[in-house]
Amino acid sequence: MRNEICQRVCRGMSEQGLDAVITVSPENFGYLNGYIVPSQPLMRWRHAVTVLKADGEKALVVIDMEESTVRNHDQESQVRVWGEFVDDPMEVLSHLLKDLGLSGSNLGIELDYLAFKDYTNLAKLLPRAKFVGAEDLLTRMRQIKTSEETELLRRLSRISDKAINDALVDVSEGSSEMDIATGLTQGVYSMGAHDFKLMIVATGERSVFPNVGPSERLLKHQDVCRVEIFSVINGYQAGVCRTAVVNEPPREAERIWQHLVECKYLVMDMIRPGVSSRAVYEAFTEHMSQLDLAPIKFIGHSIGLHLHEEPYLGRYSDVPLEAGMVLGIEPLVYDTGYGFGMQNKDMFLVNETGCELLSDYSDTDKLFVIS
Amino acid sequence: MRNEICQRVCRGMSEQGLDAVITVSPENFGYLNGYIVPSQPLMRWRHAVTVLKADGEKALVVIDMEESTVRNHDQESQVRVWGEFVDDPMEVLSHLLKDLGLSGSNLGIELDYLAFKDYTNLAKLLPRAKFVGAEDLLTRMRQIKTSEETELLRRLSRISDKAINDALVDVSEGSSEMDIATGLTQGVYSMGAHDFKLMIVATGERSVFPNVGPSERLLKHQDVCRVEIFSVINGYQAGVCRTAVVNEPPREAERIWQHLVECKYLVMDMIRPGVSSRAVYEAFTEHMSQLDLAPIKFIGHSIGLHLHEEPYLGRYSDVPLEAGMVLGIEPLVYDTGYGFGMQNKDMFLVNETGCELLSDYSDTDKLFVIS
Repeated sequence: MRNEICQRVCRGMSEQGLDAVITVSPENFGYLNGYIVPSQPLMRWRHAVTVLKADGEKALVVIDMEESTVRNHDQESQVRVWGEFVDDPMEVLSHLLKDLGLSGSNLGIELDYLAFKDYTNLAKLLPRAKFVGAEDLLTRMRQIKTSEETELLRRLSRISDKAINDALVDVSEGSSEMDIATGLTQGVYSMGAHDFKLMIVATGERSVFPNVGPSERLLKHQDVCRVEIFSVINGYQAGVCRTAVVNEPPREAERIWQHLVECKYLVMDMIRPGVSSRAVYEAFTEHMSQLDLAPIKFIGHSIGLHLHEEPYLGRYSDVPLEAGMVLGIEPLVYDTGYGFGMQNKDMFLVNETGCELLSDYSDTDKLFVIS
Repeated sequence: MRNEICQRVCRGMSEQGLDAVITVSPENFGYLNGYIVPSQPLMRWRHAVTVLKADGEKALVVIDMEESTVRNHDQESQVRVWGEFVDDPMEVLSHLLKDLGLSGSNLGIELDYLAFKDYTNLAKLLPRAKFVGAEDLLTRMRQIKTSEETELLRRLSRISDKAINDALVDVSEGSSEMDIATGLTQGVYSMGAHDFKLMIVATGERSVFPNVGPSERLLKHQDVCRVEIFSVINGYQAGVCRTAVVNEPPREAERIWQHLVECKYLVMDMIRPGVSSRAVYEAFTEHMSQLDLAPIKFIGHSIGLHLHEEPYLGRYSDVPLEAGMVLGIEPLVYDTGYGFGMQNKDMFLVNETGCELLSDYSDTDKLFVIS
């Protein structure tokens, strides 16, 4: 399990002269192990650490109350258990690193995640070790998905897409945002997601706010409804956003939606290995400029174990797209100036010849009408 | 809004000789502001910072894409906006601190949250400032809830409790764990929760695992079902756990459940201001020892803006309980040795004379039978 990914990371660390990589964040635990330790993202002091040596040996440090869960997933790796309240996890980690012969080694660790207090503690316990940031290496590795990761993200994309579609089918004027939320959660769990993130249910005047969850607000005639959800399995997440109108579109909604759909196809036509991420963004902004709206900073980004991953397709970076990247592409206008916002977010896989639409359940060509 | 809390924190920082406290975690943003910036807990690089001066002046640093949401909540505080991709939030924070006259001051900041990379950057930008950990001060302040916080936690406790009860009423042998999950989420949203955390649906042989979400597993005759959920509003969270059996209890389940219920009442009778947290824990373990099971490390903990807060009622600490504390008390056995686990988690408020059961919807005196 995770052999392909661990081998890839080992090659990456060899190129950088690292003897081992130490992950401390939930997403990079998920990356190297294929599952999430449940309480790690909930309580950041419940450290779950992976040590991956350049020769491929893997060892874990986990809190005692998660030991049974971890051993249920993994019968191969060495597991060091630290006791809540009695052990300092950084001290247990330092003992493990010594036992692995790494006390004087070059160690990559996530300096953009580990708290100042924990890092200074660990560095003091291992005065001969040389710590360098591993976040850029792991970020780079995570950009190119394996076939196993792609298959999971394809499944998650369809779950998110279908859950939104089904939730919108089930409501009508007078339903509440909570009714949409109920439909969404029922949908994602019944289709096998373990969890979800960032459920946005933003209707009527609330549709202009970027990240708002459901409220008791009731749907009214001509409301615009922005609905987004990220379905999650083993830490992997796929986000889809759709926009609907109640009964009939308000003024300008149809025109703006068609523009967003044109942007989707424009981007789909451009995405292929080698194309510049900024060129895609610029084609999008040029087309959007016809709407006379303030341009957004990016049209999309990579996605996998985090809601947003590098690279962004935006104004402030430029990288060639590569086969194996999975992208969330989201033509949107938060505030159209007409009292509503619209968004159409899809999941794409960059393949050898172009791209595949992963969120292919809904027909977005025409604006969804709730009736 | 939040005046009582901010005044209390100001008094605390004066006692410690601090000129200001800087929060960087979502929970302490929630504590000082009464709401959560949606993307902060999801993407930790989207810093949302509160600077609270000892004289009560408050200023915020937020990412551009959340500016509209923050200004919608708060028309009083100074708000500095940093642009994603173009600004370094620590640099924007350093400018704010200079403009507030704090560049050479004693500043409390959360050193157990802020990443090593961000902290070293900030410290370099403000070489004359003296930074000390503010986490202990904030942890201490959060222990004693205001009446507004208590009212919210009472409401959330009932939402969690009723959502579990209703979800269990709606299933039967042959239903899936996903059906329970659907009922739970429908329940919490329809009763007004903004969000939820740590939904545990652990049935049959899965009931021995501490933190597992719902799976496709189907309920069988005599299954034991452990179900937990934390309802969330404005970052505040109340967790309740209940255990049920399908049709009839398996061997020993009734006896163990009665024991857990006895523990609940034993603890309720003891909790009052001044009582030792460890004395409560020891009374619990003494009673539990009659079951011949390995004792757990704590029977409960404070709760509010995080799933677990200080103090714990456990083996490794001892503090006097105080009026205004809200506690999650959870008599449990993860692995009974009979192939199942059981847990009964309630929310209590320590009041002037004893304690109030906040999760008072379900009758837990007899084991819930799913039929």
